[in-house]
Amino acid sequence: MTKKLDRKLDMSLAVSPLAPKTTPALPAVAGVKFATHAAGIRYQGRTDLMVAELVAGTTVGGVFTRSLTASAPVEQCRTNRKHGQARVLVVNAGNSNAFTGKKGASAVEQTVAAAVATFGCAPHEVFVSSTGTIGVQLPFEKIVAALPEMKTKLSATATLDAAKAIMTTDTFAKVATRTSMIDGKTVNIVGFCKGSGMIQPDMATMLAYIFTDAVLDAATVQYLVAGSADKTFNCVTVDGDTSTSDTLLMFATGQAAHKVVNHPHDPRLADFKITLLDLMTDLSKQIAKDGEGATKFLEVRVTGAEHDKAAHRIAMTIANSPLVKTAVAGEDANWGRIVMAVGKSGEKVDRDKLAIRIGGVAVAQEGEAVPGYDETPVAAHMKGQEVVFEADIGIGPGHATVWSCDLTHGYIDINGSYRT
Amino acid sequence: MTKKLDRKLDMSLAVSPLAPKTTPALPAVAGVKFATHAAGIRYQGRTDLMVAELVAGTTVGGVFTRSLTASAPVEQCRTNRKHGQARVLVVNAGNSNAFTGKKGASAVEQTVAAAVATFGCAPHEVFVSSTGTIGVQLPFEKIVAALPEMKTKLSATATLDAAKAIMTTDTFAKVATRTSMIDGKTVNIVGFCKGSGMIQPDMATMLAYIFTDAVLDAATVQYLVAGSADKTFNCVTVDGDTSTSDTLLMFATGQAAHKVVNHPHDPRLADFKITLLDLMTDLSKQIAKDGEGATKFLEVRVTGAEHDKAAHRIAMTIANSPLVKTAVAGEDANWGRIVMAVGKSGEKVDRDKLAIRIGGVAVAQEGEAVPGYDETPVAAHMKGQEVVFEADIGIGPGHATVWSCDLTHGYIDINGSYRT
Repeated sequence: MTKKLDRKLDMSLAVSPLAPKTTPALPAVAGVKFATHAAGIRYQGRTDLMVAELVAGTTVGGVFTRSLTASAPVEQCRTNRKHGQARVLVVNAGNSNAFTGKKGASAVEQTVAAAVATFGCAPHEVFVSSTGTIGVQLPFEKIVAALPEMKTKLSATATLDAAKAIMTTDTFAKVATRTSMIDGKTVNIVGFCKGSGMIQPDMATMLAYIFTDAVLDAATVQYLVAGSADKTFNCVTVDGDTSTSDTLLMFATGQAAHKVVNHPHDPRLADFKITLLDLMTDLSKQIAKDGEGATKFLEVRVTGAEHDKAAHRIAMTIANSPLVKTAVAGEDANWGRIVMAVGKSGEKVDRDKLAIRIGGVAVAQEGEAVPGYDETPVAAHMKGQEVVFEADIGIGPGHATVWSCDLTHGYIDINGSYRT
Repeated sequence: MTKKLDRKLDMSLAVSPLAPKTTPALPAVAGVKFATHAAGIRYQGRTDLMVAELVAGTTVGGVFTRSLTASAPVEQCRTNRKHGQARVLVVNAGNSNAFTGKKGASAVEQTVAAAVATFGCAPHEVFVSSTGTIGVQLPFEKIVAALPEMKTKLSATATLDAAKAIMTTDTFAKVATRTSMIDGKTVNIVGFCKGSGMIQPDMATMLAYIFTDAVLDAATVQYLVAGSADKTFNCVTVDGDTSTSDTLLMFATGQAAHKVVNHPHDPRLADFKITLLDLMTDLSKQIAKDGEGATKFLEVRVTGAEHDKAAHRIAMTIANSPLVKTAVAGEDANWGRIVMAVGKSGEKVDRDKLAIRIGGVAVAQEGEAVPGYDETPVAAHMKGQEVVFEADIGIGPGHATVWSCDLTHGYIDINGSYRT
């Protein structure tokens, strides 16, 4: 695997054509500081380690991969999340510390112990993530050695650096920021994430972190992050593969001026909920837009399914179909493949009620092609960078939207290049 | 879609490097005659229509796609199969008559009526299959017009021609033959099938037909074909996509010398069952070996799962993972991706009991890489044309084997080529 990854690193990966044209300026979030370091865990000549120090009193919520072969760091986060308090986040790129047995768990423990010693917090307040190759022992001693120096470099404005330090096959840093109001007071939200392959987050993307200065108790943070993940990160798929390391954490530092919110249904959260969902949607779409080899962004909207869960499964089946994804790559309005995917979803479907739209144009309805179907506007839509497929199942109220990308030679190049 | 398929036809598809080196001589099966025709349904300059005439008294069994958007011909076969009698099989390539609404059902009815008129049988004794593009009305009048002439050309030895006439993106005709003994008498079995993309037969490959002169009642044929499909065609996946047209039919003409077998558990069937399974395994592997763009055949064996169904799902999850399939294409012994796939299968797994072997060599066990793992023999195995992955889950008696192929640039070329 070493040669393979090295080769991948040698390939100067061109930035995805779907990358945002500009990177937003990221405001400091009161109570959060970042530091990055080139620890040489696997990559050379770039940062691969980040630390976030969080002010005392920071609450945390998170959701994690449903993979049954989850990594050691995921297990650590899952355990600590229940305490609801966070002071330090440590993330490395290049090695996922997954399928590393007892030594892997020990590597996490050593990292936590070093964070405790360096930052003066409790072990349950430390969160560790690792992303990269599976099955290789993590050289945790490099992380342990780096932490004291990183503490001296902490900065409230190093957010973009932090986002860059956790990248693996990503071709651009994925960041987003919003401001919201709670109880008449301004709160900031900043988020970043990484991930472009092995992406069908059963709950979250590979790694995503959200920081806010809102004053929220831990149960409220957990409710907000878990509920929003279902509508955002859980709606992204690149290749249908689920990482062993998927992690989404949200930290609330409590530094904003409003009074504490102790309940997720508090009406003062109305704007914050919408804003958080918007930020997480933004980050989620960026992941699809950086799908390995992606040249087109695909949005699949399903309506009229038996219920929302059925709609989500149908949409995911469409978005994960290699035949649909190669048709998108080929700018081929091959709606028969959408029909095929709907049919294999396993959800309740009546073939003769199914309707398909591409780019807003009806192509099929009542179980056959639209009479006098003119492909011209559909063909034009397929040539764009953002393709929208809609399937109306015609039998119920269920609806869902998912985001994906096309399947191209680039995906094969990145994941299947011969080792030489 | 027209241009797309035409372009595909223009590309002279090279024969799969995994194709069998020789084609077996196919004996006549008493009671079966074939004729083929270039009907110009979509393809030009090749046969695209086949008819099999079956002697009176022929029994039939079959299994069909579980797709909820099944084609009109599949619905017709499913209905007629219940009568258990067959006299005529009509199969066309180039148009699947799927998602064609009421007109599609009418096209099947017209074809059946023409077969009834030509061959002098009952409507429920006619079986129709179509394979090719979805969503385009079938020019059934070309089939209707061809049947009388085809009747005059029927031949007991035109089996290979029949197999060729139903090919679409297949790069070689998939045929197999075996002889077996029932009650001390020799019986012949001949089978052929087609399919290379949109293949994850939920029950069967796209189209597969088996002919035997054994004397079996219809219930016995149905039991044998359905039971064997679960261990053969249902264990093949090329791309995880399920066709709207999957059809497997087995015809028993009753011309052999043994006395009728009326029960699938009749001990006289012992050798026949083994032989049929062997023939269907042969055909199934040929489908994986003609997977669109395939350069390597992949066998995934799962043992130690909770039960057989769990083992099958885990094996399919491994075989369908784009990351696993691209690693095979890249001759990359990236066993971490196998771990990932096991983890996302949703089946019961204990990460620390999981063991992985590649080409018979242990690479990981007890949740981590094998101590002192030497990749040399594994790398050599990955360079071969047939790759074997084994995963032992370590928690139960369940086992399963599935067959697939790698994911290469060829798949993208065939399915995603730009329309010009």
